Formats: sequence, C-alpha cells, structure tokens
Amino acid sequence: MVIIDKHSHTPAYRQLFLALRSDIENGVYRPGTKLPALRTLAHDLGIARNTVEAAYAQLVKEGYLCSRRGSGYVVNDLDFSILGASRETESTAEPRVSSGSELGTNPLGDNFGCTFDFCYGNKTGDSFPCATWRALTSEALSGDSIPGATSYSDRFGLPGLREHIARYLKESRNITCSPRQIVLQAGTQEALHNIVTLVDHTQRRVAMEDPGYSAARSVFSSRSCQIDPIPVYQGESGFLSALDDSNARLLYVTPSNQFPTGNVMPLPVRLKVIEWAADNDSYVIEDDYCSEFCYVGSAVTSLFDLDRTNHVIYLGTFSKILSPALRLSFLVLPPALVKRWNVFFPNYLSPVPWLSQEVLRLFFERGHWQKFVNKAKKDYRERHDLLLSCIETELGGCFDVMGSSAGLHVLLGARDQTPQQVLIDRARAHDVRVYGTSQYWMNRSHPLNNYVLLGYSSIENEMIPEGIARLRRAWLS
Amino acid sequence: MVIIDKHSHTPAYRQLFLALRSDIENGVYRPGTKLPALRTLAHDLGIARNTVEAAYAQLVKEGYLCSRRGSGYVVNDLDFSILGASRETESTAEPRVSSGSELGTNPLGDNFGCTFDFCYGNKTGDSFPCATWRALTSEALSGDSIPGATSYSDRFGLPGLREHIARYLKESRNITCSPRQIVLQAGTQEALHNIVTLVDHTQRRVAMEDPGYSAARSVFSSRSCQIDPIPVYQGESGFLSALDDSNARLLYVTPSNQFPTGNVMPLPVRLKVIEWAADNDSYVIEDDYCSEFCYVGSAVTSLFDLDRTNHVIYLGTFSKILSPALRLSFLVLPPALVKRWNVFFPNYLSPVPWLSQEVLRLFFERGHWQKFVNKAKKDYRERHDLLLSCIETELGGCFDVMGSSAGLHVLLGARDQTPQQVLIDRARAHDVRVYGTSQYWMNRSHPLNNYVLLGYSSIENEMIPEGIARLRRAWLS
Repeated sequence: MVIIDKHSHTPAYRQLFLALRSDIENGVYRPGTKLPALRTLAHDLGIARNTVEAAYAQLVKEGYLCSRRGSGYVVNDLDFSILGASRETESTAEPRVSSGSELGTNPLGDNFGCTFDFCYGNKTGDSFPCATWRALTSEALSGDSIPGATSYSDRFGLPGLREHIARYLKESRNITCSPRQIVLQAGTQEALHNIVTLVDHTQRRVAMEDPGYSAARSVFSSRSCQIDPIPVYQGESGFLSALDDSNARLLYVTPSNQFPTGNVMPLPVRLKVIEWAADNDSYVIEDDYCSEFCYVGSAVTSLFDLDRTNHVIYLGTFSKILSPALRLSFLVLPPALVKRWNVFFPNYLSPVPWLSQEVLRLFFERGHWQKFVNKAKKDYRERHDLLLSCIETELGGCFDVMGSSAGLHVLLGARDQTPQQVLIDRARAHDVRVYGTSQYWMNRSHPLNNYVLLGYSSIENEMIPEGIARLRRAWLS
Repeated sequence: MVIIDKHSHTPAYRQLFLALRSDIENGVYRPGTKLPALRTLAHDLGIARNTVEAAYAQLVKEGYLCSRRGSGYVVNDLDFSILGASRETESTAEPRVSSGSELGTNPLGDNFGCTFDFCYGNKTGDSFPCATWRALTSEALSGDSIPGATSYSDRFGLPGLREHIARYLKESRNITCSPRQIVLQAGTQEALHNIVTLVDHTQRRVAMEDPGYSAARSVFSSRSCQIDPIPVYQGESGFLSALDDSNARLLYVTPSNQFPTGNVMPLPVRLKVIEWAADNDSYVIEDDYCSEFCYVGSAVTSLFDLDRTNHVIYLGTFSKILSPALRLSFLVLPPALVKRWNVFFPNYLSPVPWLSQEVLRLFFERGHWQKFVNKAKKDYRERHDLLLSCIETELGGCFDVMGSSAGLHVLLGARDQTPQQVLIDRARAHDVRVYGTSQYWMNRSHPLNNYVLLGYSSIENEMIPEGIARLRRAWLS
C-alpha cells in the first residue's frame, strides 16, 4: 500500500507515480491488470482524485499504462526482465575529494598534512587579484541585457581577448601572429587533446622529451598514441638521434625551460628540431608554460619566433601568471592548421566560459595585466633568490641545484646519491613535503634518482628559511 | 645600422638583441665574425655600454654568440638555412568573428541581421541572473587568501557542487547516484570526447539517432568513429532493427526529447535499448539536455533511472536553464566507469574554472537555483504557449507542428511540401530567420525536407506575434 507523505518536497502525484511505476516494473501489477479506479484510490489514500489522475496520466504518457474507454487504466504488455537486477550505485558516503594533487597531477601531489609544502603548480592563496576580478566581473555583468552571458560565444575565443594576447606575445616573446591564429583552450590537456585529433588523428605517434610533463604524456596515452621518448639527458646528439629515429607526426617540447630539469634547449638543437619537423611534415608543440619567470637575462627566443617554416604550434597558459584555477590556455596555430581546424572542428563549441574571457579581456584593457605581470615577476624573483640563498646556506656542498635560472621550481640532487624516496620520507618526518621526479620519466632506469623537486609558487616566503633548515636536519644530520 | 627607439615599450637592450639576432640569422654577421666591441657600439648607437652588454649576454645565453676572452663576442657556427623561407602569418586584418552560430553549431546559425530571429541554443540577454551572480562572485572572492582561486581543484568538480547536483537529480529526475559518480565537464562536446576515449577508444564505432544533434556527431567524426545512423523516423521496428545490426560500443540518444524531432522514446524502445547495451557490453549515452522544460505532465522517466544494469551514462547540462555561456555540463557515470575513469585519466585536470563552480555551488546553497528553475519553467511555458497560439492563428491548417510538448524549439512542416530552403528564404525576405533541419540528418534523402526549426529561447515575447504574422505573409500569401 502506498503511503503519501504530505510533508515531502515531492508532490503527491509524483510520489504515487513513482510507487505505481515501481509496482509495475516489479510485477506487482502484471500486464493486462486493471488499476484501481481513480475515485477508489483517491479515497483509499486520502488524496484528491485529480492527484491520482495526474499520476495515471504520467504513467500513460510514459507507456506504462493505457487508458481504455470504459475499462479504465490497464497495465501495458511490457517485459521488464532486463530491469531484474538491482541497480548498483556508488556508496553515498561522503564523496572522496579527488584533487589533481592527490593524483600526482597537480602536477605534484598531496602535502600529507605537512606544514612546509614545496608543492609545484598551485599558487599562494593571496596571489590572485581578487578585488580587481570582483570589480571587473561586476562590470561585465552590469546592464539589463548581456548577450555574451546568455549565448554561445566565438569558438576561437573572444576576438578582443585574442587581440590582447597577440599584442602581449609580440611584446614579451617577439611572436608575430594574427589573433586569428589564436584558439583559447580550457587548459593544456584539452589543447593537446585537440592537437592530437588535428594533426595525428590516424597515425597516433607522438615524440616527447624524457623526462617530460606527465600530464601531457597522459593525454597522449589516453589517445592510444605510441610515445617515442626523446632523451634530454644524453646530450644534443642523444636527443637528435632519437628524434631522427622517430616517425612521429608530433613532437612535444618545453624548450624555454625544460620540465622538470629546467634546461634551455640549445640553439643548434632548436634549429634541428625545426628542420626535423619541416622535413617530416610533422609539427612541434612548444609548451611555453612559464616564460615570464626568467631570472638570468630574459626568456630565450621561442621556437615559434625562430621558425619560418610554419611547423611550430605555440602553447601558452594563464596558469602560472594568474592562476591554474582559471583553466585558461591558448594555442597559436600556423596558418595551415587554422584552416585544418575549421575543417576538422566545424562544430567546435569553445569550452571556455564567456565570463572568464570577458573579465580577462577587461583585465588587459584596463592595464591591470602588465602591472600584475611585473609584480608577479618581482615577487617570484625575490622568492627564488630567498630559496636559493637558503639552499646555499643550509645544503651547499652536499646538494646540486638544477633548473634555477627560470620557472617556479628547482631540482635538488643529493651528491651522495641518496635515492629520492629516502629524501622524501626523511623530509616528511620533519614536516616538510618535497616531491619525486620519477613520474616524469619513461626511461625507468633514469639517472636522476637522487633528485627531488621543490616548487616555490605555493609556499609563503616566511616558511622558506625554516623549511630549508628542516631539510638540512632531515638530510644532513 | 640599428636605430634604438627610446620611446618604445620594448627596452633598448631588447631592441638591440632582436636586431642583432635578425642580422645573425640573415647572414649579415656570418659564423666566426667578431661583433663590434661594447664600447664602440654603445658610442655609435648613443646608448649605455650596459645596454649593449645585456643584449650581447642574451645572444650568448641563447647560443648565437660565444664570448672569447681577449677576442670579444664571436658569432657561433650555426646553419640558419632552415629559416630561409619568410614566415607565413595569418593576415593581421581584423580577426574574423567566428561564433559557433556562424558555423551552424550554435547549433543554429547567424541571423543574417534578421530582426525576428528564431535561433535555438542562445537565450535572451536578460535571462541570466546577473545581479545574483555578481554578488556570489564577490562572496567567493572575498577574504585575504583563497586557496580555491589559486590551485588546481578536484578533477571531478567541487565536491559541494556535485552534492547539490546529485540532490537536484534525485528531486527532479528520481535519479539515485552518489556525488562520486558525477564528473563536471566543460560542455557536451568535451564530455562526449572523454566518453569516446573511455569506452570506445580502440573500436571507434558509435551509433546515434538519425536525425540527431550535429554537434555531437561532429565529436564522433573528429575522433574518426564510424557512425551507425539509427533512424528515429521509421517506427520502433526500424529503430530497433538498426540498433540490433550495430556493433557499436556506444549509443548516443536524447530519449526525453529527441533532438530535433521532439519525440519521446517509447517505453518498449527504452527497455530494448537498455537490453541491447547490457547484452552487447555497450553503453548508452543519455543526453537529457532539456528535461526541465516539459509542457505536458512532467518529464518522462530517464533511461538512467530505468536502467538497473549500469549501462547508461547520463549527460546533463546547465546550458538550457542557466546559460550556454557557462560551459558547464556533467556526466553521471555507472560505478564501473568511475573506476575506469580513474584508470584512463589518472592525470586528468578538470577543465572547469574554480570560480564558475564555486559561484554555482553558492547559487544552489543559497536557494537561488530552485527559484530560478521555477521561474524559467514558468517563463518558457508562457512563451511556448504564446508561440503555439500564434502559430495556430496564423499558420493553422497549412503547417504541422512537431515537438511542441517539451524543449525550447518546435519544428514546422509545410503541408504543401514546400522545401525548407524555400521556407527559409521567403522568411528571410520578410526579415524573419528560421532554421533548416537538414544538417541533423545522415540520411540525406530524409522525409522532413518540408520542416524548419524555430527556437524560442532567444527571442523576446514581444517579437513573437509579429514574427509569426510575418511568416504567414512570407509563406501563405
């Protein structure tokens, strides 16, 4: 017998509908059975006749019942045996929080509750221009009718924002491109996903640096690409001969600041990489993820700027300057690939919210961007210098520092060859979190097993001296 | 001779660097050539010696020059011949605005400047809750340190938001799921992209309704899937026999409101679809894109709710209720696919900005969602009734209406079999934009060539009577 809960948020007719539907599915009412008359059921349940009628009408609409003139409502002849099994649901216990960080994709992991966390990728909580963003959001959403807020927008991204990006690329990287070559993307992974489809959709063979950015590799893996590792650690000749042996249609590199080693790709290698792409009808994806942060001179010439053969795809991001929480990156495509994009993705809908784009456009237009970049550069340079001076003081002579000339992380290598896991565990025992580098390698017998990674974008300046002092105690006493 | 522009935004050292680099690449300075001494060049250019030194240092850092003790700066031996061709750039003319709509992916097109535009997909400019969104954005971005705003966030989406979605699905669709089964996505296309990778990454065979949503089909095409059309227009037996003949691992359907016909999938077909998936170890993607808008009874039972075999993937979106500009949709995965997601996408970074998620979470938490949905339902019902009464008055007897029981569009078919292109052209001559339906078909000799599509989510109520009156003049006089 159905009990109608009159205090429920679910309307009475819907409660009755769900109960009767369940009874039909479970065979309580078999095919051909006539359901109780409206009046009778209404009386039995103490509800209005209209309510019963609404429930029956929905059952008719959905095909559970038919209504026959003179003979009332009859259960249709349906085979519900496929529904026999009871449905499996994930435990409704508290949902597990699965941050990228937990999965080593942050790229670098959970802090295990450590007080001193040299996490890479995230930024300090006070680094986002919240007040400006609030004000610009209010501006973007003011007025009576805002077509941008209620429509699908340009599939390449707002033209005004792309113009600002093109101008910034010219000023900061000497990159000459038209806004028409720029496609906004919802992060590096989405961009790579699309590039695989665009360039390599049948061959599925990608070359990438080893070690290299694991979140990029995982996109290629998920697309079933064969991945040719190109060693960055066997000198130029090792790199170039591996590249020559590869038939990949795509090469993924981080030439300005190799991730995670921090090496700069030497000019002869840059030229060879471009030549390789041009000769093999392949494309180079240049992930220029943190060219703004360069502590020795200015950022090196980008491959995109160097290339005149139109075989370089430039990939930029707002994750490092502004925030990874924005999920905003962009591709600069060679003209031929712009055409190909139009052919391959004729119905592409931009995955980037209009509001994010419009607020960032205003952020440029009102002159906030340049000021913010300058301040971020200054802040990170100070933090970089502080970190390195602490490392020199506390660990100098016993650890090698790699990759300190640019970016937002360094590698520390134990001269006595202590393995990274031992370093990580000892640090953790002193309430400091440092990170492994093994996940970046395809070559499992790699030569940097004594190196750990320390990011410095998410740790406060005040924490650095004590954090590094603790590392000395953890590692050297 | 280099001219240094002291009024440029580009620092003098960088202007000199770029000029010298260009000279080296172009062979003005050949390998082995010694560059002018610092002092000499500084004097010639009227700039500081430090400036020249900085430019030379950057050239050394990048590998263009080497610095030899006693012999100054010498050009390295590099082969720049690969750079010989001059680089092609897209015309820097005003970027072409390429909205989804222009490309028929909006899904429905440019209005050609028509005053009366029955566009589908977009919404009226005043339909977004701007004031509330502004207030909630301010709330989300207030405080000194906001870790969410500066970090990679949960790769499935904010847990608090997923809990609200799970609750809403239970209330509105009787769907029982754990928040752990929900994955936020940056739109339907991204969701389908991921599902293809997850379920069908090697076989690449997808079945979908014909006619069907072209933006979905285009994702499958871009992934090189073979697409089996399952006719929705040849009765149940036609549908089921085509499905039985398909070996697809995925079936994409819109059972609550077939796009674009507006049909509701009959219950026997629903049961068979589930049985087909369970028997073939396949999955059904149920795109429930507008179940909130139902004008006859309430929305029909979802496949996901009906299914106990765990072979249905539910796909929901915030595009119709809130706005397509949000780029926010979600998957509800069967438990086995949640596990598979973790295996396939271990390094997946959510493409949805934290701020969108947090503001939407607050929108639920503060009770705005339910009020907003109720108002939207009421508004669209009024607009729907107005549209249908205008159609009845102006076009009744000469046109058939299809798909008016739910959703945000109807199809209008000319009883005299006038082809859609003629209808479109005549309407346009009267300043009214209606849309074709051919792009939704794989079967090019489809039977609905006399049908056009009219959306009513982006046209103001005041425009509807005159718009339909113009259609009468265009089509019937």
